[in-house]
Amino acid sequence: MSTTAIWLPTLITKTPQEGFELAISLSRMGVKSTQPDVEILKKLRPVYSESADGLTAASQVIAINYQTIAAANKYWR
Amino acid sequence: MSTTAIWLPTLITKTPQEGFELAISLSRMGVKSTQPDVEILKKLRPVYSESADGLTAASQVIAINYQTIAAANKYWR
Amino acid sequence: MSTTAIWLPTLITKTPQEGFELAISLSRMGVKSTQPDVEILKKLRPVYSESADGLTAASQVIAINYQTIAAANKYWR
Amino acid sequence: MSTTAIWLPTLITKTPQEGFELAISLSRMGVKSTQPDVEILKKLRPVYSESADGLTAASQVIAINYQTIAAANKYWR
Amino acid sequence: MSTTAIWLPTLITKTPQEGFELAISLSRMGVKSTQPDVEILKKLRPVYSESADGLTAASQVIAINYQTIAAANKYWR
Amino acid sequence: MSTTAIWLPTLITKTPQEGFELAISLSRMGVKSTQPDVEILKKLRPVYSESADGLTAASQVIAINYQTIAAANKYWR
Repeated sequence: MSTTAIWLPTLITKTPQEGFELAISLSRMGVKSTQPDVEILKKLRPVYSESADGLTAASQVIAINYQTIAAANKYWR
Repeated sequence: MSTTAIWLPTLITKTPQEGFELAISLSRMGVKSTQPDVEILKKLRPVYSESADGLTAASQVIAINYQTIAAANKYWR
Repeated sequence: MSTTAIWLPTLITKTPQEGFELAISLSRMGVKSTQPDVEILKKLRPVYSESADGLTAASQVIAINYQTIAAANKYWR
Repeated sequence: MSTTAIWLPTLITKTPQEGFELAISLSRMGVKSTQPDVEILKKLRPVYSESADGLTAASQVIAINYQTIAAANKYWR
Repeated sequence: MSTTAIWLPTLITKTPQEGFELAISLSRMGVKSTQPDVEILKKLRPVYSESADGLTAASQVIAINYQTIAAANKYWR
Repeated sequence: MSTTAIWLPTLITKTPQEGFELAISLSRMGVKSTQPDVEILKKLRPVYSESADGLTAASQVIAINYQTIAAANKYWR
């Protein structure tokens, strides 16, 4: 996988908020790794982003990734 | 992302209860990051807030975010 | 939020069992924070409490909150 | 809650297997706390115990509770 | 429960891969503890093992159990 | 299980990004362990990879496995 572009050089961020943004990115990369076709992703976006269940599920994945990033940053204490 | 307003300056809170309120905020930010359109969010709110499954799912996301915040605060011991 | 009643003064409990009861309370507060209308909550209660899936989902939220509380209490070792 | 019978005196078990059995008990207590009516629980049991999704969901709750119990026992190392 | 056969003597494994296999076993034991009837389990197997959602859910339970086992083994560092 | 090919020699990776790729692999192994038939897996792939809910669920399993791998690597600090 040495030819893959670097998109995740570090888990360290300056602030808790930037860490949250990174958690959002990780959640999206999890989706993209399963469905790399950007056209299909675009078509699916309204399906979950206008669905109450889909939005809660998306928020849950972000919360799980944020646990990892917050621990990596020792909670920015 | 330097132009984004600061909405999460710290994970540290004075009390366990304020930490729980922050967990609720994080859960909502997870939703908003996926669906920024406030009008759509308003329309969806009754869908999950009057659904038993939707409320349990929302409570689960809060519980996951609370794990992060409680650890950050060393459980307010 | 200084006007809110204090309902979570501490995560510390005397016994593992009281900790479990607190986990149940936190799970319910997660629901109430999303749907504060007590009448709607009363109507929804039979929906999930008489549904196999709903009960398993409720038990899962309690389990997640119990992880937090058990860690806070250093597992009552 | 001082009148409640003691059903969870400790999270410490002698072996990893007894810990797993305790995780099963905690998962059931999570269900019972939401639906205390034994008759309803008996009626619901076949619904999830003969459903593939229901069994996987039950196994997930046990897995989450087992994380707590295993940590409490320092993994029986 | 002293008459139960011992099926989980330890969480310690020699390699990360054996730990993953143990996580699979724990996930199955979680199912069996809820539905001990082997005939019913055999009937249900194709239901989830040929369902996309069922397979993702099974993989999630394994992932949660693997967290426990990996921590028990200090990540085989 | 000594005859099984080695596919997981270590949880240690050089970078956070390689760790994420390993989390994707673990998530797929969780699926394969439940459904070893490659033909069935191929048939199911479009079902979840073109479903909004299926993709979010897949991303969630990756997030859980990434927690394990990130901890194993002490977050590449």
